[in-house]
Amino acid sequence: MTTALLPEFLQRIRVVLCRTAHPANIGSAARAMKTMGLTRLVLVAPELIHTPMTPRPPTFDPAHAQDFRLPEESFILASGAADVLENARVVATLNQALHDTTLSCALTSRRRELSVPPATPRELAPELLQAASAGQEVALVFGNESYGLSIEESTLCNRLITINGNPDYFSLNLAQAVQVVTYELFSHVDLPLDRLRSTAQPVPRQEIDGLIGHFENVMDDIGFFERRNRERLLRRLRRLFDRADTEREEIDILRGFLKTVQKNTNPR
Amino acid sequence: MTTALLPEFLQRIRVVLCRTAHPANIGSAARAMKTMGLTRLVLVAPELIHTPMTPRPPTFDPAHAQDFRLPEESFILASGAADVLENARVVATLNQALHDTTLSCALTSRRRELSVPPATPRELAPELLQAASAGQEVALVFGNESYGLSIEESTLCNRLITINGNPDYFSLNLAQAVQVVTYELFSHVDLPLDRLRSTAQPVPRQEIDGLIGHFENVMDDIGFFERRNRERLLRRLRRLFDRADTEREEIDILRGFLKTVQKNTNPR
Repeated sequence: MTTALLPEFLQRIRVVLCRTAHPANIGSAARAMKTMGLTRLVLVAPELIHTPMTPRPPTFDPAHAQDFRLPEESFILASGAADVLENARVVATLNQALHDTTLSCALTSRRRELSVPPATPRELAPELLQAASAGQEVALVFGNESYGLSIEESTLCNRLITINGNPDYFSLNLAQAVQVVTYELFSHVDLPLDRLRSTAQPVPRQEIDGLIGHFENVMDDIGFFERRNRERLLRRLRRLFDRADTEREEIDILRGFLKTVQKNTNPR
Repeated sequence: MTTALLPEFLQRIRVVLCRTAHPANIGSAARAMKTMGLTRLVLVAPELIHTPMTPRPPTFDPAHAQDFRLPEESFILASGAADVLENARVVATLNQALHDTTLSCALTSRRRELSVPPATPRELAPELLQAASAGQEVALVFGNESYGLSIEESTLCNRLITINGNPDYFSLNLAQAVQVVTYELFSHVDLPLDRLRSTAQPVPRQEIDGLIGHFENVMDDIGFFERRNRERLLRRLRRLFDRADTEREEIDILRGFLKTVQKNTNPR
């Protein structure tokens, strides 16, 4: 690795840790990610448990998220990456953590029942790096040590990855998972990223939210949900529009259409 | 996840930890390697330091190497990989650890003055796996957390690898290094882990035609095309649904929605 400056686009890649339990894992994750060139950490509603080194962990208060102070143990394990911890954003929800991201990549275990099989970090890394180098905000999302991410949280992300390993024993510590994913990402950094820059403008996720919300309103207005599973239908639609990397112009067309439908609909 | 057996040749790959200082790292390394399908651990003259959890670490006696007992802390960190610790061989010298190996691969930091630049784990993995599957004994060798391997120890190994990362901050914990190297190795193992066949059913293009046609009819009904470019709008929509590899179920949802809109629309 030449001592070229770290590509500045790596600053557009954030690591998001949701509801982490062990203070040591947060510190180790900070060290792991900084070692692979990433410095933006976001903590979502930490659920710190007590440990030998942290007998009285701080409780997270959603009303004062940014006031949350990590215990000493996190800083000790962070080693020379204390700055990553100090600069970490602390928020109450994953939605807030993913604000203004275009690409969000959730780590999931393969055991989950998923209709779309997750990609491996190696398969997804080029897309993540290309997005970041094209100016987009990218997030790598990790869940709680015991239960991972909720279905809802996974749904907020538009990409899923899984790490493959020993089918008879797979016990990957959270900080190890962060290390592996960021290592994989970094291993692609030296590659020429001169693929065709697409002129497409994928949108921040709030706009997909808006589109789905608009569909939901209209579907309500016309009674489309009667005898149908609302959540499942909306989830499928979201998946479709996430998968398509729906562009601003396409959202405008669809929402313009939905608005016109609303104007023309018989009041119920 | 298919339950294919782990390839038996992985048993010919051993992880060798030389003069490790932190008992936790030995345990975490055991967990990390087992998660990637490796179970043979060799410890060379551990130099355990005292830690909060291990105030009085055992001293290694070269005359009674195999009597060395790892402290509780190692077992706690090993999680479900305690068997790897229990079966670990303990020896006095790296020479003994590498006995009967044909290929030994030392992890080194790039900062060392080396006449032969080290390979990356990705570059070397195929050769290591090929050797193991051809019946050869292979070793992955890691040094002490602070000073790594001595020049002499590195010389005993016939391959050198280094892990690339942030040139301004590279602080890779020992167990993380074991995780990264074993992860890289496993990623080249030809297990049928590759995506479960997706249950997705991309549809013949006539069905996308049908969907676009349906959108067109409804848009006509509600006067959506007034002052808009019909062809361009429909072309954009088609591109969206083509790009998404829209599935049958999603088409059904959208067409069901469009049908309900038509029912609810004021006749024009």
